[in-house]
Amino acid sequence: MKKTFITILEEVELNQPIFIEALPGIGHVGKLAADHIIDELGAVKFAEIYSPSFPPQVLVDENGVIETMKNEFYYLKSAGEYEQDYIILVGNTQGLSPEGQYEVCGFILDFVEKYGVQELYTLGGLATGQPVEKTKVFGAATNLEKAKNLEEFDVTLRSADGGIIGASGLLLGMGTLRGMEGVCLMGETPGYFIDAEAAKALLNILVALLNLEVDTEKLDERAKETRKMISKAQQMEQEMMERMTLKPGEEDLRYIG
Amino acid sequence: MKKTFITILEEVELNQPIFIEALPGIGHVGKLAADHIIDELGAVKFAEIYSPSFPPQVLVDENGVIETMKNEFYYLKSAGEYEQDYIILVGNTQGLSPEGQYEVCGFILDFVEKYGVQELYTLGGLATGQPVEKTKVFGAATNLEKAKNLEEFDVTLRSADGGIIGASGLLLGMGTLRGMEGVCLMGETPGYFIDAEAAKALLNILVALLNLEVDTEKLDERAKETRKMISKAQQMEQEMMERMTLKPGEEDLRYIG
Amino acid sequence: MKKTFITILEEVELNQPIFIEALPGIGHVGKLAADHIIDELGAVKFAEIYSPSFPPQVLVDENGVIETMKNEFYYLKSAGEYEQDYIILVGNTQGLSPEGQYEVCGFILDFVEKYGVQELYTLGGLATGQPVEKTKVFGAATNLEKAKNLEEFDVTLRSADGGIIGASGLLLGMGTLRGMEGVCLMGETPGYFIDAEAAKALLNILVALLNLEVDTEKLDERAKETRKMISKAQQMEQEMMERMTLKPGEEDLRYIG
Amino acid sequence: MKKTFITILEEVELNQPIFIEALPGIGHVGKLAADHIIDELGAVKFAEIYSPSFPPQVLVDENGVIETMKNEFYYLKSAGEYEQDYIILVGNTQGLSPEGQYEVCGFILDFVEKYGVQELYTLGGLATGQPVEKTKVFGAATNLEKAKNLEEFDVTLRSADGGIIGASGLLLGMGTLRGMEGVCLMGETPGYFIDAEAAKALLNILVALLNLEVDTEKLDERAKETRKMISKAQQMEQEMMERMTLKPGEEDLRYIG
Repeated sequence: MKKTFITILEEVELNQPIFIEALPGIGHVGKLAADHIIDELGAVKFAEIYSPSFPPQVLVDENGVIETMKNEFYYLKSAGEYEQDYIILVGNTQGLSPEGQYEVCGFILDFVEKYGVQELYTLGGLATGQPVEKTKVFGAATNLEKAKNLEEFDVTLRSADGGIIGASGLLLGMGTLRGMEGVCLMGETPGYFIDAEAAKALLNILVALLNLEVDTEKLDERAKETRKMISKAQQMEQEMMERMTLKPGEEDLRYIG
Repeated sequence: MKKTFITILEEVELNQPIFIEALPGIGHVGKLAADHIIDELGAVKFAEIYSPSFPPQVLVDENGVIETMKNEFYYLKSAGEYEQDYIILVGNTQGLSPEGQYEVCGFILDFVEKYGVQELYTLGGLATGQPVEKTKVFGAATNLEKAKNLEEFDVTLRSADGGIIGASGLLLGMGTLRGMEGVCLMGETPGYFIDAEAAKALLNILVALLNLEVDTEKLDERAKETRKMISKAQQMEQEMMERMTLKPGEEDLRYIG
Repeated sequence: MKKTFITILEEVELNQPIFIEALPGIGHVGKLAADHIIDELGAVKFAEIYSPSFPPQVLVDENGVIETMKNEFYYLKSAGEYEQDYIILVGNTQGLSPEGQYEVCGFILDFVEKYGVQELYTLGGLATGQPVEKTKVFGAATNLEKAKNLEEFDVTLRSADGGIIGASGLLLGMGTLRGMEGVCLMGETPGYFIDAEAAKALLNILVALLNLEVDTEKLDERAKETRKMISKAQQMEQEMMERMTLKPGEEDLRYIG
Repeated sequence: MKKTFITILEEVELNQPIFIEALPGIGHVGKLAADHIIDELGAVKFAEIYSPSFPPQVLVDENGVIETMKNEFYYLKSAGEYEQDYIILVGNTQGLSPEGQYEVCGFILDFVEKYGVQELYTLGGLATGQPVEKTKVFGAATNLEKAKNLEEFDVTLRSADGGIIGASGLLLGMGTLRGMEGVCLMGETPGYFIDAEAAKALLNILVALLNLEVDTEKLDERAKETRKMISKAQQMEQEMMERMTLKPGEEDLRYIG
């Protein structure tokens, strides 16, 4: 396996779909919000991406069944008041290396471009490292007009304090090179737990922007389940990290199992 | 040497062989178990893999003769009550980088698939970081049926506490994408020494699952020998790690020798 | 996106242009000086480089509009007393990995070679780690004659205390393999802030060497603006670095957002 | 520059030359010994290797003239009592990444194989981390016969305490896959300075093995000169290392200059 590849599960025709990305990130804010949309609106999985840039591991579910590292595409037809089609990207990982991130994001854009995607919404969390009183949603856009529009929806523009790392930033940046437009929304979070509050705040903005109807109350339950799954992934990566950063002198068998 | 490559030592025909993987890992539990099967049942080496993803080094044996980093395939014909053929993979290393792991594991699956392999057993250790009273064997499987079957053989399903990193996980994950099935077995170990007890527990489960007959008593002796070899490899990797992580300000000649 | 690529914004013919490189580096000394030349002399952007070796992120400007990571080529026609043409390279990043640096620098040389470039000036900072009383400008050259000429312009030859890391060094080194000649100029800086003093000293030497006329007084203002932008980029890279170097045991969600 | 490449400076015919490798390593023991042979016996440089796996930097010599990172091939005709031809490899760096090491070493073997090389001598240092009373020379070989022969020349076989990392090990390991034979000699050194004593001990063994005549007395002078050059390279790599390992929270401009 030397290349990123895609498995198409269902051939589907979509009408100028909007693309929503919510791969795992800080506080799993984006992922939580996107998984909720998928469930509430009944989005259908139609493709999966596998990549040698993903972590060299598998997850194990609650029944002892392994799950490969992957990104998953869902589609949604005629959703909301605007009867808009959507492609939603979720998954259990992102590319590990810088080159891997560029490769996978380029691959994703190639794929969604074929379906006519011109507009991108990327979702994530923004770790402030401090307790959050009233959750803000931060945002950025590919042009001034879209940035101003975000402000009208109570989004705080992310300007003075940094950029956007990972797929949420890169998809927008690489998208502009293809003439795509879009925005990034980031729910403010302390970043140290699965943050349903941040996901709810993020989701409320998103559904307002897209004129979708999604019940956000059930997000708290979802957050609980996710917490369990994440602690697994987290521990696994810790193990990998530990082995890779083993200090000289520590007595351990340093091969990867 | 820019690509992983294989050297075939013997052309062999096998009848739907089962594939057993036991590359070096935590406590060398899997490797110890597989080396024991190879010796006790007289498996024959028939191919070797070399890869630029392996550590850039050689080992030196007790006679001062160098040994290259490699993975080795053994075959076993009509073994056990079921007269089953096997391919067993052992070696002195795994791929170093994530991309290297994916490449080598894909290469391995390509190779064994040609011999008709449909079923995988991957062996490893699970470091609990605590002293072990009665050695458990943990497991996971590619589907629910196989996972349930493991429980009938006293295997503890690895569900609540993490995934499977490295070749043992990746071969199963990538195998499912080709329609292969399989299980991973992991002997519980504190992880800080060559753990013959964990290997014995693992081997007892494996031979029960496969209906093989292997005397596990001699495993203690094998563990002693292995211990010597490992301390070499361990020290070597420590040296490499040290040079790679040399702190600024330390007075050292930082080129690799 | 698997390869470095270039977007040509304007077809331009240049007459044996001199190439000036000033990608971001220590104290942003070179970048500050080059941005100043571009503004003061009205250089025109005509091409942009994008690369999977750049950090997998975007920046956000003061209006909440994202900016991709890129290197930018400007040209300047018949500048200074010698009516010399120039190509000036600036940008918001360099390649991250060693292989990435080699790839991007080779790409840059391929590009400017087509315009007839034979002479290179690379600009950077030299962090002495100490407070600077009177800012020195350090230099090195591709041959003895050019090195001696630098000394006549009060440049201190960088000989006893190290080499030149990154694009400023690599472009010269790789350039010599194509028969190009050039010098590297480095403004002395403590290295911990945007150093307008160092940029001014560097610029004064550069304009003397090239017989250009540039008002260096406005550099202080420029330094202030740059400071704001840099703190953003800096924080963003810190976040990336933090996630990549997360210690085991720290409670964080270790996926990249 | 995406690939390792070679520049041939002189076409030369050699008669079954022996290959000696001495790239920079611990204590610069091997390099010191090989540079001495080159000077004393008047070896002639005939080819240079450049690689994107080398560090992305240049060195600067005592006159402020830059020097690219490279490996250099010298030849020696009809040397010593046996009128033996030699190819000697020295340089100012090795490949940085594991994959880079494999690529460059494979490239080197491809090149010397064309000249008929069948026998390899790789030279290095072995850091014991302790003060050395009487300098030992450690060794290893590609087969038992050669290993035993080393013992007759007072070489201590490196068996119980580790392998051989980097080009000195990898060239032998990869060489065996092409049917080449050879030995590695390592001068014992504390490893923290340019060790002329270790180089002298190593050289004495080497000339005895090869029946060459080389005056080893001048090695002390050479060691002094080398010390100066090395401190440069050392400091430069420290800078690179520092920037790559910058801790979050440290206030620095983290781009590479």
